[in-house]
Amino acid sequence: MATKIALLQSNPIVGDINGNAVMIQKLANLAYESGAGFAVTTELAISGYPPRDLLLQDDFISRCHQVASDLESPIPILVGTPVPPIQDRSLPGNGVVRAGDSIREVTRKQLLPTYDVFDEARYFEADERPGIARTIAGVDVGVTICEDAWQHCGATPNDYDSDPIAQIAEWGRQGVLLDATVNLSASPYHADKSGVRIEVARSAASSLNHPFLLANQVGGNDDLLFDGRSIIAWPDGTAVVAPAWKEGVLVADLSDPSKCIWKGEGDLVHLSPNQEFNEGDNDLLDAVITGLSDYCRKSGIKKIVLGLSGGIDSALAACVASKAVGPDNVTGISMPSRHSSQHSIDDAKATAETLGINFLMYPIAKLHETADSELSNILENGNPVAGENLQARLRGLIVMAHANANGAMAIATGNKSELGQGYCTLYGDMAGGYAPLGDLYKMEVYALAREFNERIGAMAVNESTLTKPPSAELAPDQKDEDSLPPYPILDEILRLHIEDGLDATQLVEHGHELNVVNDVLTRLSRNEHKRWQMPPAPRVSKRAFGQGWRQPLAAKHDWRD
Amino acid sequence: MATKIALLQSNPIVGDINGNAVMIQKLANLAYESGAGFAVTTELAISGYPPRDLLLQDDFISRCHQVASDLESPIPILVGTPVPPIQDRSLPGNGVVRAGDSIREVTRKQLLPTYDVFDEARYFEADERPGIARTIAGVDVGVTICEDAWQHCGATPNDYDSDPIAQIAEWGRQGVLLDATVNLSASPYHADKSGVRIEVARSAASSLNHPFLLANQVGGNDDLLFDGRSIIAWPDGTAVVAPAWKEGVLVADLSDPSKCIWKGEGDLVHLSPNQEFNEGDNDLLDAVITGLSDYCRKSGIKKIVLGLSGGIDSALAACVASKAVGPDNVTGISMPSRHSSQHSIDDAKATAETLGINFLMYPIAKLHETADSELSNILENGNPVAGENLQARLRGLIVMAHANANGAMAIATGNKSELGQGYCTLYGDMAGGYAPLGDLYKMEVYALAREFNERIGAMAVNESTLTKPPSAELAPDQKDEDSLPPYPILDEILRLHIEDGLDATQLVEHGHELNVVNDVLTRLSRNEHKRWQMPPAPRVSKRAFGQGWRQPLAAKHDWRD
Repeated sequence: MATKIALLQSNPIVGDINGNAVMIQKLANLAYESGAGFAVTTELAISGYPPRDLLLQDDFISRCHQVASDLESPIPILVGTPVPPIQDRSLPGNGVVRAGDSIREVTRKQLLPTYDVFDEARYFEADERPGIARTIAGVDVGVTICEDAWQHCGATPNDYDSDPIAQIAEWGRQGVLLDATVNLSASPYHADKSGVRIEVARSAASSLNHPFLLANQVGGNDDLLFDGRSIIAWPDGTAVVAPAWKEGVLVADLSDPSKCIWKGEGDLVHLSPNQEFNEGDNDLLDAVITGLSDYCRKSGIKKIVLGLSGGIDSALAACVASKAVGPDNVTGISMPSRHSSQHSIDDAKATAETLGINFLMYPIAKLHETADSELSNILENGNPVAGENLQARLRGLIVMAHANANGAMAIATGNKSELGQGYCTLYGDMAGGYAPLGDLYKMEVYALAREFNERIGAMAVNESTLTKPPSAELAPDQKDEDSLPPYPILDEILRLHIEDGLDATQLVEHGHELNVVNDVLTRLSRNEHKRWQMPPAPRVSKRAFGQGWRQPLAAKHDWRD
Repeated sequence: MATKIALLQSNPIVGDINGNAVMIQKLANLAYESGAGFAVTTELAISGYPPRDLLLQDDFISRCHQVASDLESPIPILVGTPVPPIQDRSLPGNGVVRAGDSIREVTRKQLLPTYDVFDEARYFEADERPGIARTIAGVDVGVTICEDAWQHCGATPNDYDSDPIAQIAEWGRQGVLLDATVNLSASPYHADKSGVRIEVARSAASSLNHPFLLANQVGGNDDLLFDGRSIIAWPDGTAVVAPAWKEGVLVADLSDPSKCIWKGEGDLVHLSPNQEFNEGDNDLLDAVITGLSDYCRKSGIKKIVLGLSGGIDSALAACVASKAVGPDNVTGISMPSRHSSQHSIDDAKATAETLGINFLMYPIAKLHETADSELSNILENGNPVAGENLQARLRGLIVMAHANANGAMAIATGNKSELGQGYCTLYGDMAGGYAPLGDLYKMEVYALAREFNERIGAMAVNESTLTKPPSAELAPDQKDEDSLPPYPILDEILRLHIEDGLDATQLVEHGHELNVVNDVLTRLSRNEHKRWQMPPAPRVSKRAFGQGWRQPLAAKHDWRD
């Protein structure tokens, strides 16, 4: 079989049906020019993933379906699109059509993930059989959609009743011989997930006894990231992986892995059988930059403003913002108070200068004094946290004033460790349209700051910022460690609990002190109301606050008592 | 059959397994004293509904299951509880056990709603058959769980593959004769839903040819409300309905509807066959009060603070708060600016005095001047909305300072019409832990204010507040109608679009002007980012912003272009 198959790794805008169609056509033309016989898009490429409640609108479904079916292209394309319900009072399908062929529907997704960030049972009816695209450019291919391939090697959190890969393998044993099986994916990123995804592809290729090709979406949509990394896997475990975070076309020569080509920025990774995949040192940094950058581009946001405290979080957030929208379009505001050290101002300024972003200074002393005196009745006999939060909120006020005055988006600079402990101020440092570091633990913030410096070859985050003890500077001589465990310990407890589900007993078995564990878990549950109102943050961990985290608020969380 | 069956209409706290067990026992004792032979709880009564991601914790499931199975009671109880997975790598069930009988599981829910505010496919494995509790106090009853009964009369948005009521009816035709069928429910409230729920019960009773008894949860959990109104329906359509918004026990005498009794506050409603149910004039007001009251009680919040602008929204919010936590525990703050009218201060004060809540006045003039002068560089050449928002945010700052200083919860006073149009300020009037009016259209706010006045027999919302043109008072002589359509029109467009799914064309067919419709729908989609960060609001409409509203942010919403 000499037909080459192209995987169109695209970065759709959710809801931009026509724009997404144009991008698919552009990539398909590139595929055609590169000698591909037909092309395969990602899952729901025409609507973008996840379309969320747009899928509840009948005319959205029919419009997607029509545009996908009507796509013009020099080569056939298997297009991922929502498809209308099969009967009245049933849900639409998550399907695949053949462009230019409005009659034939190729298949609908069988396994509908409904866990973590996925809500597919909310929107789609499951199908009962995988599909086949017969004699498409002279070959017969099995067609599956994302999750359909994940049950086979046990990579889903819970078992489904059926296994579409096993079904296609069974057809093969019964004489339905296919040349390859393709998979249209929108498989969200989290750190260290690529290895599992490649394992899914290898396991499928091995059982099917023919190549397995997975086209994955790339880019950020709200709080979800897609890393691309489309895959071709052969039955012996040989695999070719497309670059992360870039649009492009992977043209597969099924007869010779070394002849696969990538049309786009970056290079293919060739894996020999059993060779493990390495995501690379800068992957997490690229992920976070992609999240903010795509959020701005897809929302029409051109400018970013943030508070620059001189601390590590706002310094890294400024770095990320400068890459996301360009340094000229970023404004950092230093807003020192009477509790701020001189190094806070100096360090903030150093970051701004190194990055080449705009730098403003609005000391809050006068506003703070006025507020203190105007609100003295409120503040003097109350919980001192009110006075601390007042400073954070005055800063939020200034940043939002700048944002509103200039049509910029404010970003919140908090990290996951702070958010997990409620060590942050609602409407203060939590104010903003996006929280680029919201799923990074504090120690990851340090690591990414060092990586960023290395990448640009300059100390955008200077040594002082990297080494001074973290402080909110909302009270004299305040240090984070006065209220929280040291960050390496806090981060580990949070990670083990949130991502791996360890409870207090298991955390103690892991070597953590019981009173520390209890304090951390209590603060985590008591501050759920803050996270309910946090801006979207790009999900980079196995479990992030946001769409995949649905905790009750007015609840007894310590039900083990 | 002389056995009386008791429906335990309880108001659980999510996660408070032991507390919920105590309440069930207390109600079961009351049922026993009233001559009931056995009792039935609501759905997931032991965990409270919805437990959300607590269900992802294995030990939460097993703890619920154990406490439910071990419940001690003078009469048998069918208890709604999460039950462990049947096998490895499958999900738990939404089940029913017989208290005191740790061996026998009665049934698991078959139909798992996964739409609107429901996410049950995320947490549960569906069962394949309804259950029977045989010879429980001498009778045989069919056992179903909430949604199981809704497919039968077509009351679900989409069809399921099976119909548990039809299955039990079929058993009857095959000789499995039951005395009654019970249904454990956690059926959330929205206005005008009771009629449908009673129709579900009547339809089931008619097809089953025996009485159908539905025990429904009562009270507020975060943004979900449950109205109670447990039902007994007979095959001829006779029905008895328990009071709304109250805990209690409905003791059913199946042989004589007139002998059914209610142990608790309020009275039963007796419906003759075909008689329609009327929710009563004050139902929506009770709903909103229950939402805030239960949120505070279940979160341990004793005090509420809010900005009192002199406008209708904050006036009604103060009324609701005074009922939720008592007037002594509510503080209203008047924060006039240079754009505020004298009537704003007078009307705010009048509301506070009539309600007997605490009243404070913090004019923002001085803070506003300081901010204007300190931020003059930002404000003078920018979008004027920055200056308007500044005032709202200074007020948010004051309210939050009071909240933090005094351990109170701030409430946001915005309504659904404003939130739907982004006519509100993030971190300003949107600041707060709960938004009691967040699912009320503006005209409903007026109606409830008049109802509240009637209920207390005093003008808590005075005539001036009820009749003056709505104004945000953030600029000289500003009126809401300068930026928005008249509220009766705005409300109708929003309601028809959000709740009934009408698109622009259909709205025009409904008699609305195209340019008005387009403006409203554009503002609705452009301001999604604000609603992402809004506090929880009690859902009282068919579709509310919040858990049942999942829109993409960085998306092209006008995909019809």
